Amino acid sequence: MPAHRWDLLLTHATLATLDGEAPFGLVENAALAIADGRIAWLGPMDALPKRTSIGRSEDLGGRLLTPALVDCHTHLVFAGNRANEFDMRLNGASYEQIARAGGGIRSSVAAVRQADEDELLRQSLPRARALLGDGVATLEIKSGYGLDLDNERKMLRVARRIGQLLGIGVRTTYLAAHALPPEYRDDADGYVDALIDWLPQLHAEGLVDAVDAFCESIGFSPAQTRRLFEAARTLGIPVKLHADQLSDLGGAALTAEFGGLSADHVEYTGEDGVRAMAKRGTVAVLLPGAFHVLRETKLPPIALLREHGVAMAVATDCNPGTSPLLSLRQAMQLACTHFRLTPEEALRGATVNAARALGLADRGILRKGLRADLVAWEVAHPAELCYWLGGQLATRIYVAGQPLS
Amino acid sequence: MPAHRWDLLLTHATLATLDGEAPFGLVENAALAIADGRIAWLGPMDALPKRTSIGRSEDLGGRLLTPALVDCHTHLVFAGNRANEFDMRLNGASYEQIARAGGGIRSSVAAVRQADEDELLRQSLPRARALLGDGVATLEIKSGYGLDLDNERKMLRVARRIGQLLGIGVRTTYLAAHALPPEYRDDADGYVDALIDWLPQLHAEGLVDAVDAFCESIGFSPAQTRRLFEAARTLGIPVKLHADQLSDLGGAALTAEFGGLSADHVEYTGEDGVRAMAKRGTVAVLLPGAFHVLRETKLPPIALLREHGVAMAVATDCNPGTSPLLSLRQAMQLACTHFRLTPEEALRGATVNAARALGLADRGILRKGLRADLVAWEVAHPAELCYWLGGQLATRIYVAGQPLS
Ligand SMILES: [Zn+2]
Ligand SMILES: [Zn+2]
Repeated sequence: MPAHRWDLLLTHATLATLDGEAPFGLVENAALAIADGRIAWLGPMDALPKRTSIGRSEDLGGRLLTPALVDCHTHLVFAGNRANEFDMRLNGASYEQIARAGGGIRSSVAAVRQADEDELLRQSLPRARALLGDGVATLEIKSGYGLDLDNERKMLRVARRIGQLLGIGVRTTYLAAHALPPEYRDDADGYVDALIDWLPQLHAEGLVDAVDAFCESIGFSPAQTRRLFEAARTLGIPVKLHADQLSDLGGAALTAEFGGLSADHVEYTGEDGVRAMAKRGTVAVLLPGAFHVLRETKLPPIALLREHGVAMAVATDCNPGTSPLLSLRQAMQLACTHFRLTPEEALRGATVNAARALGLADRGILRKGLRADLVAWEVAHPAELCYWLGGQLATRIYVAGQPLS
Repeated sequence: MPAHRWDLLLTHATLATLDGEAPFGLVENAALAIADGRIAWLGPMDALPKRTSIGRSEDLGGRLLTPALVDCHTHLVFAGNRANEFDMRLNGASYEQIARAGGGIRSSVAAVRQADEDELLRQSLPRARALLGDGVATLEIKSGYGLDLDNERKMLRVARRIGQLLGIGVRTTYLAAHALPPEYRDDADGYVDALIDWLPQLHAEGLVDAVDAFCESIGFSPAQTRRLFEAARTLGIPVKLHADQLSDLGGAALTAEFGGLSADHVEYTGEDGVRAMAKRGTVAVLLPGAFHVLRETKLPPIALLREHGVAMAVATDCNPGTSPLLSLRQAMQLACTHFRLTPEEALRGATVNAARALGLADRGILRKGLRADLVAWEVAHPAELCYWLGGQLATRIYVAGQPLS
């Protein structure tokens, strides 16, 4: 009788396990076995156990095998796009002219409110497919263009449906505190009251995995954010924050105070904020897409984050205004180029640390017992994932051990 | 009897013709007819001529149809890659340390010399496929990692074979004057003598469509470049130049003096050079990939180029050291972001102006009588081609009227 029963055995791979101390956790000429959707064994080919029953076997011919990517910060459910603003801006229009032409986040809110759920799904699904096609098998999706109960619900329902349709993991985040809707102009506190009121119901409907806010001088104040976080805590929902992107309002420290999953952007976070994050294990989510598109110059405090051992994640921030990124690998490239992350930091940032930023401990590393979410890449070395710009490098994606056709 | 016989009619498209004065030459709800590999008719749906015999018809459902892209500057035939240097650099290694570890262009020269022709083709073909997959149907490929007669020939033969295998247009460029080979260390003039000697033979073999050089203080001098250009002129081969990337050596003006097709990079080109290019119709080829990867800050003289009416092209510069770009659309995005080109300039730069930089007048615009090299894109407006980063937006590519499967 065989000692092991495996559904699928992948042979002749280069594994970037991201486990242990070796660079990238690299294991050359290796194999990885899958049983019941989980990694059942991995190691050098010549250490393969005897007496195994193998359902099916695939020879990867030396290709790189990594954990599937995790995109832990996206706004990919939206309607329309803002390429016209991009065009106007490059033709010399000022932000004021664009705003007067109905541009900015208001145009995305109007478009989302106008689209029904099926239409919103129809427009958003190709973006999720694009991310998946480049190796992403777990995805966070935020609301935040509805800004009223029904439209926030619609966005979150579309996010759930994307996960079901594509068979990938989707984590939903309630971001009603993204901008002030027209109904509450000049009454931010009233709007925060309202969106706190909506939360229990949406949570009861199973639509809210986490709560987020845009904490900036042009967004919501730390006091308003704190009220929202307290409501989330009462319901047992984890928090995260758009923190310190344009100025240091102490957003990262506030997030850490609530034991938040992640503080995102963090360009202006100072040492106090970094120290608070380190203490509570809050992940720093770096978003180089917006930095690139907006041609920002203020770098996130990478050296401090390294020094204090704060885990860094990298995400697309896929959104129509500031980061129209349809590839997490491109975000990794931009993180290396703009933020000087090493390729290994970028890959850990788009796998194990991104999973941690979503509260998921079962993926992001190649290790026995974890989910078999994997990508086989048409490259020989993991640094290439950050080196090439463009191209179709993901040749095969496995979700819970099942190859996607 | 029908008045027209068309092989293929594409209906319900948005055309970006790039012809005429309207932005992008846009024609909405339009059709385009193909006969004998050329554009036989185009215009609004309701102006479709009566009495036509149509072989086949495709409904594009409102999709954008543009001229197929033209990548007019690549070094995509190479062996190995330099992701290890990218990794070393981000891990803090200096250029000197990388050079001591055998890095830099020397490593590409060693790898190309070691690979036989089939192996070089095997490694290079996927890069051409990646460019094609993102909409490129005409491609320039340079030699320049062989640096001796046999290895330069091998590179140019591989370039030709790529064109034949993929059924796309490939223009070859002889760039033996790319770097000094180990055999000629400290004898640049001797090497220029040699590479001028090799040229007639390679040209007679049908391998040289244009001649190029790397004219910089760390490359070849203007005097050496002039000697090469004179040899090319004698043979009737058009010239182009890697000009003024790191300093203004007058490379753009020198190229214009020889009626060159294009001066490429041109970051440091001054007004005299721009004026000379305008006078002779030399195209300025902008290469934002290297600018991005090297984090350069010296911008090409865009305002001057506009003012003097110099046509601007945009290319990937696909190469293993400074621009590992596998998508021309990404180069267009980088040209908008870093160089502030408008999306229309970027699209003209990757179509009609790029074709002109290759001396090709039969493509790059949608116009009756020109080649039916076309791309149908999964977008509604041409500005989106520069707006999105990543994603698979090209849904169908037609080369001389034939859809690629
Ligand atoms: Zn965001
Ligand atoms: Zn070049």
